[in-house]
Amino acid sequence: MKFELQHTDAKSSARVGKITTDHGEIETPIFMPVGTVGSVKGVHFRDLEDDVKAQIILGNTYHLYLRPGLDILKAAGGLHKFNGWDKPMLTDSGGYQVFSLSDNRKLTEEGAMFRSHLDGSKHLFTPENVVDIQRVIGADIIMALDECPPGDAEYAYAKKSMELTHRWLKRGVDHFDRTEPLYGHSQTFFPIVQGAGYRDLRTQSAEFIASQNREGNAIGGLAVGEPTEVMYEMVELVNGILPKDKPRYLMGVGTPANLLENIALGVDMFDCVMPTRNGRNGMLFTSEGILNMRNEKWKNDFSPVDPNGTSFVDHHYTKAYLRHLYVSKEMLAAQIGSMHNLTFYLWLVREARKHILEGDFAQWKDVMVKKLTTRL
Amino acid sequence: MKFELQHTDAKSSARVGKITTDHGEIETPIFMPVGTVGSVKGVHFRDLEDDVKAQIILGNTYHLYLRPGLDILKAAGGLHKFNGWDKPMLTDSGGYQVFSLSDNRKLTEEGAMFRSHLDGSKHLFTPENVVDIQRVIGADIIMALDECPPGDAEYAYAKKSMELTHRWLKRGVDHFDRTEPLYGHSQTFFPIVQGAGYRDLRTQSAEFIASQNREGNAIGGLAVGEPTEVMYEMVELVNGILPKDKPRYLMGVGTPANLLENIALGVDMFDCVMPTRNGRNGMLFTSEGILNMRNEKWKNDFSPVDPNGTSFVDHHYTKAYLRHLYVSKEMLAAQIGSMHNLTFYLWLVREARKHILEGDFAQWKDVMVKKLTTRL
Ligand SMILES: [Zn+2]
Ligand SMILES: [Zn+2]
Repeated sequence: MKFELQHTDAKSSARVGKITTDHGEIETPIFMPVGTVGSVKGVHFRDLEDDVKAQIILGNTYHLYLRPGLDILKAAGGLHKFNGWDKPMLTDSGGYQVFSLSDNRKLTEEGAMFRSHLDGSKHLFTPENVVDIQRVIGADIIMALDECPPGDAEYAYAKKSMELTHRWLKRGVDHFDRTEPLYGHSQTFFPIVQGAGYRDLRTQSAEFIASQNREGNAIGGLAVGEPTEVMYEMVELVNGILPKDKPRYLMGVGTPANLLENIALGVDMFDCVMPTRNGRNGMLFTSEGILNMRNEKWKNDFSPVDPNGTSFVDHHYTKAYLRHLYVSKEMLAAQIGSMHNLTFYLWLVREARKHILEGDFAQWKDVMVKKLTTRL
Repeated sequence: MKFELQHTDAKSSARVGKITTDHGEIETPIFMPVGTVGSVKGVHFRDLEDDVKAQIILGNTYHLYLRPGLDILKAAGGLHKFNGWDKPMLTDSGGYQVFSLSDNRKLTEEGAMFRSHLDGSKHLFTPENVVDIQRVIGADIIMALDECPPGDAEYAYAKKSMELTHRWLKRGVDHFDRTEPLYGHSQTFFPIVQGAGYRDLRTQSAEFIASQNREGNAIGGLAVGEPTEVMYEMVELVNGILPKDKPRYLMGVGTPANLLENIALGVDMFDCVMPTRNGRNGMLFTSEGILNMRNEKWKNDFSPVDPNGTSFVDHHYTKAYLRHLYVSKEMLAAQIGSMHNLTFYLWLVREARKHILEGDFAQWKDVMVKKLTTRL
């Protein structure tokens, strides 16, 4: 992987860059649609490429490991071949899902023991085997195993957890450097900064992660229940420490406004289930604000879903029709909502990129954040 | 509406024709995807037009009347404007759904009293008001109110029911001829042959329906549980009576093999939920046979979903990946299955049309029916 930092904003820490992988280029800042089990819910890959204009998608190691499982992924020649997405992919380490989805999990020095949420079977993720699993999945960017404490974690727990994540990281780095990719394209390994909402822990963690000298770095353990101001404070602090010449990936974030604020703080990469999950539920993000499509007020509104939208769904369908589809629980509603939101997220980061290059990002961002958080 | 009978097969009753409506042309034989509540489940309208190549879709009066309801449909300027499908549409009369979906229905001379399956509210469909409702919906082809007895109906009931359907038809025709379309495009009204599986009733009904001298005629009350041979026998009998210079629409049919056999008997139009419903459940129809995509046997089959398929889903996705999506209950599975099956149905009727024109329809049909009914 190669990262070229192309421009930094004069009035903020916003940056424009280009990541080059064996599966193609990614222009940053970028948002990565989440393809949990190897499919971005409700969106055909053709549409993801042509309409959403996704440049990289994310897969979940926890889900893919359980189903379809490593045998099938290996036989397919990796996830790229399995799902037909021949552009960049990133996989998380599975740690987050172990804590949020599985029953009966147990953390030890060795790793995270858990029971599958599908069939109760027992599994162990270690810093080493999540590298091996991600070698089999074959993502271009793979993530270290970490523990992600809740947003309100107490100091003692957050510190202990961070220290474990750091020890795991060393083992993961060693294992990654001793192993090879399986499918002829190179893979890179991102470590993850933890430390909850504590400045000294975040500082310590960012320094440790930076010292690993990997090709990119991630910030985890945010947007997990803490106040938004704490997230921004931690990101600013951490980005002051992480190297400038490497991409910074803020995991699991967030709303459109969160994206712009964090771009201003120097984040380059994002992922979040929000555009698809909220899309399925009828919440649409637009450049003028947030629409709840189930609302009675759209009943007779025959204007396009989003007149400023760049997806075909924005212009083909009307608000009244889309409301009818949500109320009638039609599949097409979730498809339209997901397409719209993902296309909007990708438009938003492209637009941010453009304004950073043009030099008016900070002003544009302030105007946009107000609009983005308006309820229409 | 205009129907031009372009060619009749020498060795069967198969026909090729062209229907012209104010919303465009339909090349027959044709299959009409079902858009129950104004949306073809799982398929964007763009894809329905460009990939599936649908020429006409069907809407359900019962569903549309209950939701979004007539006020919204009228305010939109009809269903074409409401859902954005600017090609031909046909609506059924709602009679079938009253009997299959609603609780507490009661048939009288006046019409069909029923309670909504959504909220229990009480409604009455009459031969006259289903015309009015379909005027509001604005379909290009609208259907008469009929009673559709079950496949095993006894003679006395079938006869009584047919006679009621005939009396309702007269009232419907009168009302249709006294009313006007609402949106500037013309509408036509199809009567429906009933008579269950009884030759004398079907004969009597076909003669009565033919005597109404409408622009097209439909055959109802088949594929409702009777043996397939009875369906073919009744269609052959009825088509011997219905005028040759008008399109014949066999309602609610059927499997791909059913389509070809009925085309051979002179049917021009079909609709059925099977391609979408079975597509959602993992049953795929192909030119080589039927695939159950949930089957373990596809687990490691990385060949395309359907190498002979004409839809992008057939080539972009593999059997192993599609099986994984079905097993994981991913929305995308239902989307792929629906797209595949609809595209296959439309391919099949285009192919039938081609072979009728080329003069080898009968031989082609016999080869195809064997393949179509094979379980792969
Ligand atoms: Zn590749
Ligand atoms: Zn129109």
